[in-house]
Amino acid sequence: MKYDVIGLGNAIVDVLSLEDDGFLEREGLAKGGMALIDADQAAALYKKMGPGQEVSGGSVANSCAGIASLGGRVNYVGRVCADQLGEVFAHDIRSAGVGFDCLPSAPSGAPTARCLILVTPDAQRTMNTFLGACVDLGPEDIHPEEFADAKITYLEGYLWDPPRAKQAMEKAAKAAKDAGRKVALSLSDSFCVGRHRESFNALIDSYVDVLFANEDEIIALTEKDSFEAAASAIQGKADTVVITRGAKGSVVITSKGQSSIPAAPVEEVVDTTGAGDLFAAGYLYGYAKDQTPEECARIGALAAAEVISHFGARPQVKLQSLL
Amino acid sequence: MKYDVIGLGNAIVDVLSLEDDGFLEREGLAKGGMALIDADQAAALYKKMGPGQEVSGGSVANSCAGIASLGGRVNYVGRVCADQLGEVFAHDIRSAGVGFDCLPSAPSGAPTARCLILVTPDAQRTMNTFLGACVDLGPEDIHPEEFADAKITYLEGYLWDPPRAKQAMEKAAKAAKDAGRKVALSLSDSFCVGRHRESFNALIDSYVDVLFANEDEIIALTEKDSFEAAASAIQGKADTVVITRGAKGSVVITSKGQSSIPAAPVEEVVDTTGAGDLFAAGYLYGYAKDQTPEECARIGALAAAEVISHFGARPQVKLQSLL
Repeated sequence: MKYDVIGLGNAIVDVLSLEDDGFLEREGLAKGGMALIDADQAAALYKKMGPGQEVSGGSVANSCAGIASLGGRVNYVGRVCADQLGEVFAHDIRSAGVGFDCLPSAPSGAPTARCLILVTPDAQRTMNTFLGACVDLGPEDIHPEEFADAKITYLEGYLWDPPRAKQAMEKAAKAAKDAGRKVALSLSDSFCVGRHRESFNALIDSYVDVLFANEDEIIALTEKDSFEAAASAIQGKADTVVITRGAKGSVVITSKGQSSIPAAPVEEVVDTTGAGDLFAAGYLYGYAKDQTPEECARIGALAAAEVISHFGARPQVKLQSLL
Repeated sequence: MKYDVIGLGNAIVDVLSLEDDGFLEREGLAKGGMALIDADQAAALYKKMGPGQEVSGGSVANSCAGIASLGGRVNYVGRVCADQLGEVFAHDIRSAGVGFDCLPSAPSGAPTARCLILVTPDAQRTMNTFLGACVDLGPEDIHPEEFADAKITYLEGYLWDPPRAKQAMEKAAKAAKDAGRKVALSLSDSFCVGRHRESFNALIDSYVDVLFANEDEIIALTEKDSFEAAASAIQGKADTVVITRGAKGSVVITSKGQSSIPAAPVEEVVDTTGAGDLFAAGYLYGYAKDQTPEECARIGALAAAEVISHFGARPQVKLQSLL
């Protein structure tokens, strides 16, 4: 097979700025979450934000960059516009070693998506996404032979937000399954789960082998009121359910039971943007290499520790060197 | 007066990537320097570079952002294109607290300038600048009343590279002098000095009160073969000559003699991009507040120490808090 992993996601350039908690309060932003904003809201918020750093992002795209950095063979599908930020996104993912051939949208349409990320002094990130050209992603971007040619198809829950991406996601998952491949899904965000709970459950039941979530997301999906109850409820829903718990590490749930894997040490947590994405990168890299769930989670923890030690959601060192 | 400082410079967005020394050798790049490249060279080099971080730059623009961060009142003049990177530049400098009203060039022309910066493991930066819309800067962008309304006009030597910017620089210096204001100039880069030595000398003789240079640049200007000989030769050429020497600190040369000021301590030097720009920011802030040359250099050292402790050439903390 040509690829270990093929990813499908919203192709986004992040704009990160350091803000204090007062900024979030004044703007009415829910700390730690991801809110969808339109072009006007994006322009208004950007105007108020401090000086930014632009770094390519997008949840599954970050994971793909991480898998490549670990030495995996990766392909990515996502829609940018043929504009300057689209060039930035395409450059960054290709130069990270990820295949990226999805045609960009014409410059006359919506611009490349951007996510305005406010990083507070506690290293928490609050995300505000203008989907832009991501709404152009549709089933015509899914070429089934590409999904047959990768061991794992990795999808992000955020894809439920742009309407036609749902069809693209289903087509991709079906192509992978028809070819006997594995499908992994990240729940992405608890508010996103809340918006699309039924669709999430249907997709998981039909296709998903490996499910990634954090505590809030798994609680949102199962509608339970504690982590323990949610973890019990989710068991068996997918072959493997991997729940990340920040500094508390991760829990892997399979038919055999639960294992806890500690987080990797970090000297200073600077920006938690991409922590879950890089955890998934490490996990999926191990999974593609037939490692045990515990070893997969250990690689995930190492990759996550690197990305939270600096600004931006893509690795700054060759992750392979950390293994 | 409305402003402490008005700056005039090439308005550039930096694209930073981490590369090893082998990359510089393979590409034939002179480590630590600034090379001018055209659009095709920029595209070819960008393709080879690793994943980037986009951060607004431009030498005098960085200084202006630093002066604002110290609490000074600042205005900036430079040309971007009305494209996405131009919006990024305008947002970042305005949100740093700097006035910026220069009209952008039409999107049909050259795009916003970018500087491809390779940062090596020793934290040295090697810069490759595609001037883009900077070549549109001309005397029509200089409104003499704005230069009369600032205590100090600050110019960068890099402005000699785009042809019409030379006329803009002379018009700005003359407007400042006619109004009885001070003029400061950075020599910018030793290769730039080599390209335009006569013009530099003529401008300094006619207008410059405060001259900033590093060791290589002052040697290139004076055509001497040691720092000591160059420092002697430059004395009296401007009221104040400030020479930065990296970790060795700085030397201030006035008619009264020379003083040495130590560098400020830095825990880890990550990226030296902007070190000279932020030193100048601190110095000029002190100068606008009528501090002694030694105190000005001490503020410069503090500002430089902050900017070399992270990626990118603009401050990430409110510099005023460091004073």
